[in-house]
Amino acid sequence: MALKIAIVGASGAVGQEFLQVLGASNLQIDELRLFGSERSRGRQYAFRGTTTEKVRCLGEDPHAFDGLDFVFVSAGAGVSKQYADLFTSGGAVMIDNSSAFRMDNDVPLVVPEVNGSDAFNTPRNIIANPNCTTIQMVVALEPIHRLSPICRVHVATYQAASGAGASGMMELEAQLRAFVNKGDMPVEKFVAQLACNLIPHIDTFTDNGYTREEMKMHFETKKIMHAPDLEVSATCVRVPVMRAHSEAIWVETEEALDVETVRKAFADAPGIVLHDLPEPLGYPMPLDASQTDPVYVGRIRADLANPRGINFWCVADQIRKGAALNAVQIAQYILDHR
Amino acid sequence: MALKIAIVGASGAVGQEFLQVLGASNLQIDELRLFGSERSRGRQYAFRGTTTEKVRCLGEDPHAFDGLDFVFVSAGAGVSKQYADLFTSGGAVMIDNSSAFRMDNDVPLVVPEVNGSDAFNTPRNIIANPNCTTIQMVVALEPIHRLSPICRVHVATYQAASGAGASGMMELEAQLRAFVNKGDMPVEKFVAQLACNLIPHIDTFTDNGYTREEMKMHFETKKIMHAPDLEVSATCVRVPVMRAHSEAIWVETEEALDVETVRKAFADAPGIVLHDLPEPLGYPMPLDASQTDPVYVGRIRADLANPRGINFWCVADQIRKGAALNAVQIAQYILDHR
Repeated sequence: MALKIAIVGASGAVGQEFLQVLGASNLQIDELRLFGSERSRGRQYAFRGTTTEKVRCLGEDPHAFDGLDFVFVSAGAGVSKQYADLFTSGGAVMIDNSSAFRMDNDVPLVVPEVNGSDAFNTPRNIIANPNCTTIQMVVALEPIHRLSPICRVHVATYQAASGAGASGMMELEAQLRAFVNKGDMPVEKFVAQLACNLIPHIDTFTDNGYTREEMKMHFETKKIMHAPDLEVSATCVRVPVMRAHSEAIWVETEEALDVETVRKAFADAPGIVLHDLPEPLGYPMPLDASQTDPVYVGRIRADLANPRGINFWCVADQIRKGAALNAVQIAQYILDHR
Repeated sequence: MALKIAIVGASGAVGQEFLQVLGASNLQIDELRLFGSERSRGRQYAFRGTTTEKVRCLGEDPHAFDGLDFVFVSAGAGVSKQYADLFTSGGAVMIDNSSAFRMDNDVPLVVPEVNGSDAFNTPRNIIANPNCTTIQMVVALEPIHRLSPICRVHVATYQAASGAGASGMMELEAQLRAFVNKGDMPVEKFVAQLACNLIPHIDTFTDNGYTREEMKMHFETKKIMHAPDLEVSATCVRVPVMRAHSEAIWVETEEALDVETVRKAFADAPGIVLHDLPEPLGYPMPLDASQTDPVYVGRIRADLANPRGINFWCVADQIRKGAALNAVQIAQYILDHR
């Protein structure tokens, strides 16, 4: 089937990854329209050996989204809210990377390995892509949850600069140069120096002391996994890594599970690469996971502080599975299953 | 009281910090003998406005440790085991920074804020300094444990390069230079590139899949806190930070505690600086904690996945409170309380 696709936010870190992921996919794409901010108007990019049409701005042509199958949107929650009607007005399915609609009851929140069939329940023709930290975690939780329902999750994240977009990665690079050359330290995108530091604060604070980033992991996990009683307590930390997120995760299941059973379930699970050997380099690291598709799992152990607990380490590329790849996989799932 | 003190491993990262911490303390030090490896033989260092005597090597003079009050040892477990009898033969108390004797029943493992009085129970004249990750954690656990006994701890660490010694910090710096200048990446001290990466593996692996570093947190915490039923499950991760360790900690107590009560207990606890505001920079970060004494605590929240749980974020300088400072505080405690 020949597809007509638009990317909104085409010049951003995730937008650029959409071009990579779509280009490498086996989707037949007949038409690709790119949209972006005034700053990126007119830019063109390489795509499948040719050059894309020029980046357009939103709001100029009411028919700009007519005749499309999918609109991939990654330009912030404000743009998603403002233009959702425009994106879907011509019949396209909007796959939205922002947090704008994730918790809306009439918008499914989809990770194909977990709840792909929810992608068909789209009264508003909008599907939300979960937050990056949630996506990789639920891919890893799902095979355990199928062995025995998970009741609690404790997770500490190690989140890469890419989560703050292309400008986040550029600022980390600039900071590392300043650190090495003993120059002035640029601090604009992050609230503090990230180079050789950690910032335990992502997104804004909520009334209970958790950040919005941490509450996304709490609420989105329940929705994706259809598990209202699965409680997540997260601590989200920005680390000086470029583009793959890591997570130290403890789960408590209703029945006790042994490590071998869990390891086998990970090995057989879609989207997961098991990398779990008790030896140097026998575990996933963010540098190795960068620019690759899978969710990597390792360091699987019995929880020494909980007889019904398992803990493990989980790494995935934030821009790919954490954003662009998952969105494209949602479209792929719809095409494969309808 | 005028003291005679020796430092073994004087040229290492911790040894150098001993000179700083002892120099800044109000201990009256009449004599300071320095010992090190063949490589550092003859070196001299600045100390309280003068120059130390030359670094000597071990094993050459059987009376080298006669007449001392304290011998601070930080030269690896092998040196501690081989020379413990020599260090204590002249009546000195050996305060050992290595893991050699930590779990021996006749060697107390001491963090003054938690179990200072154990420092007087020294049949072998040896006191062990706990592992850096354990020290900062138990300082933070103790005020909660006094409100209601802690039964479980889940902890994810973010450990600085300094934990691998001065050569670890130098390798991280060299790696950052290589990253910025696109040069050859030196990887000798760590098992992989640490710059812009994370290594979820510190010390060797044990049979249960945990690393020795993780099991130190498990066993040492029980011993220091006199809490054999307090179970700790740790994931220890090396991060590209220079010299302060951070920890995301979840505790479960026997009785439910509210966040305000815990916050007040932290504020009143010795050795802790509370830094807990729901706003940008309202939390401790390792860059700020570097080269300072306290254990910093922030991000205190009710555990959303456990009605009897509290979670928080804890940062301390690894070389100072995690090593040299705690050892000097043990000596200070003995002098103040005997």
